[in-house]
Amino acid sequence: MQAGRLIVFEGPEGAGKTTQLRLLASALERAGRRVITLREPGGTPLGDSIRALLLDTVHEMTPEAEALLFMASRAEIVRLKVDPALVDGVIVLMDRFFLSTYAYQIAGRGLDENQIRQANAIATGGLIPDLTIVIDVPPSDGLARATARRGPDRMERSGDDFHSRVSAAFSLFATDDWQRKHPECGPIVKVDGAGAPPEVQARIAGALAQKLPTEFGMLADAHVK
Amino acid sequence: MQAGRLIVFEGPEGAGKTTQLRLLASALERAGRRVITLREPGGTPLGDSIRALLLDTVHEMTPEAEALLFMASRAEIVRLKVDPALVDGVIVLMDRFFLSTYAYQIAGRGLDENQIRQANAIATGGLIPDLTIVIDVPPSDGLARATARRGPDRMERSGDDFHSRVSAAFSLFATDDWQRKHPECGPIVKVDGAGAPPEVQARIAGALAQKLPTEFGMLADAHVK
Repeated sequence: MQAGRLIVFEGPEGAGKTTQLRLLASALERAGRRVITLREPGGTPLGDSIRALLLDTVHEMTPEAEALLFMASRAEIVRLKVDPALVDGVIVLMDRFFLSTYAYQIAGRGLDENQIRQANAIATGGLIPDLTIVIDVPPSDGLARATARRGPDRMERSGDDFHSRVSAAFSLFATDDWQRKHPECGPIVKVDGAGAPPEVQARIAGALAQKLPTEFGMLADAHVK
Repeated sequence: MQAGRLIVFEGPEGAGKTTQLRLLASALERAGRRVITLREPGGTPLGDSIRALLLDTVHEMTPEAEALLFMASRAEIVRLKVDPALVDGVIVLMDRFFLSTYAYQIAGRGLDENQIRQANAIATGGLIPDLTIVIDVPPSDGLARATARRGPDRMERSGDDFHSRVSAAFSLFATDDWQRKHPECGPIVKVDGAGAPPEVQARIAGALAQKLPTEFGMLADAHVK
């Protein structure tokens, strides 16, 4: 049986993560691979209850409670959905995972890096993504795109400075220096999010084919045709 | 203005924490002190939502999510209730605090001690109780008392082995060796929970008067009269 793989999509609001994740899922299914798509927070009964608390526009909360709620939802989805799928040889595509905690709660909210990393290890149980794809867009573009589409949720209403820090963090994650200091994050590649969805998808397919050729080489072939 | 003090009541189910906390609050109010009583989980709007998720008898959850939810509730109550009360010179009496996480999630569920301590530091922001009173009862007695009163909640249905490990942990916390290795917990004193509530209260008053004589010496005097 072929091994499962965990591929994570990250980036600021409105980067096009969800669209790109769906395009990739379709391409992989056409190539005969079993795929599931998941998003954080949520994805389990308890996680969906937590998601409602986190994104509800009425509920205010401390940055610390926010971080711990995201991680509680993560603890559930890892053990109930991701781990079993990987054991079963399925490719798991996640719309956000713990790199979002590093961006939003450490860089954005200013929480202690070591404490957050340790707490996150409780949530993930040491699970490391096979590849994380950070979709890079100018912060103002992405946020405007996301909020125009459906109105801002609680996270999106956190102010321009907050979102600038988050975007800067996402850019930093793909550097060699940052990755060397954060082995728990696995390999991270930054992909330019500019242009039409099929253009961005071709870049993502190229990155996957280059980083994990055994499993994703066929994506590059498909684009060559 | 007199400084606020944080006094925590801990112990296994049915130890009589809530009764003792109320008796102490009354005694302190009679002595002219301002007092608030709080319990975990809950005590804030978000915390009460989390409490419902944690104690709901239907919702199953992973031990990791359970730990992180307790801490999310804690992050809220510390910043919204405890810290402001202490600044205002109020005596805060808490029915459970983070020592319960050490007992239930580390000793009971077997989660990693270092990770839980770091995550807990996010929740508490480094707040250290002035004194934690562990009420000591034989585990089987306490659990039987608690569940006979109102039927078991999700935590109480976790099995005899689990509750034995929890009770053993609570007994260990009051030892010098354990306290030296856990400075973030502050001073911990074990009080025998056997006998009628007024007898146990006299022991608690004695412990407080001995450990914090400036603030609680009057409790010993009241009992001498």
